[in-house]
Amino acid sequence: MTGRLIAFEGGEAVGKSTQARLLAERLDARLTFEPGATELGARIRSLVLDAVDLPVSPRAEALLMAADRAQHVDEVIRPALEAGTDVVTDRYIGSSLAYQGFGRSLGVEEILALSLFATGGLRPALVVLLEVSDEVALSRQKTPGDRIEAEAAEFHRRVVDGYRTLAEHNPDQWVVIDGDRPVGEVAEAVYAAVQERVGV
Amino acid sequence: MTGRLIAFEGGEAVGKSTQARLLAERLDARLTFEPGATELGARIRSLVLDAVDLPVSPRAEALLMAADRAQHVDEVIRPALEAGTDVVTDRYIGSSLAYQGFGRSLGVEEILALSLFATGGLRPALVVLLEVSDEVALSRQKTPGDRIEAEAAEFHRRVVDGYRTLAEHNPDQWVVIDGDRPVGEVAEAVYAAVQERVGV
Repeated sequence: MTGRLIAFEGGEAVGKSTQARLLAERLDARLTFEPGATELGARIRSLVLDAVDLPVSPRAEALLMAADRAQHVDEVIRPALEAGTDVVTDRYIGSSLAYQGFGRSLGVEEILALSLFATGGLRPALVVLLEVSDEVALSRQKTPGDRIEAEAAEFHRRVVDGYRTLAEHNPDQWVVIDGDRPVGEVAEAVYAAVQERVGV
Repeated sequence: MTGRLIAFEGGEAVGKSTQARLLAERLDARLTFEPGATELGARIRSLVLDAVDLPVSPRAEALLMAADRAQHVDEVIRPALEAGTDVVTDRYIGSSLAYQGFGRSLGVEEILALSLFATGGLRPALVVLLEVSDEVALSRQKTPGDRIEAEAAEFHRRVVDGYRTLAEHNPDQWVVIDGDRPVGEVAEAVYAAVQERVGV
């Protein structure tokens, strides 16, 4: 495979989709996202996120997210990389580690094993973690939000702290970008990090 | 947990659902099945089995089956066992090992790891493998069948051979019952095996 895979990660409303789009345009990369980028994934997404009255156990949630990722890699990411195209994805393995591993307290190693099975071991060349202050996150938050967005504050605190832990433990793969600045400044910081860490 | 979990396994049209029902009646056990026994599971089942035009990669299929199992254990099996009720299930972990591990060639150990995550390590007290001759299986087969039933003959051969391998490697947990005989005789053989191996 000759294309490179770059993943954006972070909690709710940190600017991931905007920054992923800007980077993909600049790199002429394929822009994609999780969950829900394939037809199967869109149906899985609606089970996990939209059906608020449907009981979904934490382990079932983790497995459904991994199923979405398996289809995404098989149908979108791997074909693009194999064709030599860079891929920028809004969320990838890190989201499962943060939300199900830390947020749902299911264990980071077990959740990582599910994602490595799902992806056939396809890890990103670089993970860009966008961090914003609590004030900025709150001001950007939409209401009412989906089933996961509607989780309690302690859940989102575990997710944000979990992301920070992941970045600290994987400094070769992760880079942390301050997302509190104006969109253009953040985009420049992201591009500089990609240039330095992956090359462009 | 005080209830016992007994799983029926086997290829298509070997008489699992009939024998599971007869045993559950005799033990006054909770009768259940996979995939699709919960509301989430029914929706997953329709994605995996009924939507023949929807692309589902082998790894996504394995993860969706595990998600169904996670919800099934959380919502149905574990509460019954904890209440002291025996549970008889038409398919369980063995089906994933046979169909995704052997049939889809995804690796038995990796598929087992998914199921152990899904179930929180809940293994059955006894697995009853029903085997029938090819002639009997063919004569009972419905047409056209769902997405997995419609797989090629080599796939079903790998499944049936895989089941036999699983039973041979786990003689403490698995018992093989000849399903070619009349329903009542098979039921007696199943009950005798349960008496001997689990107690009643």
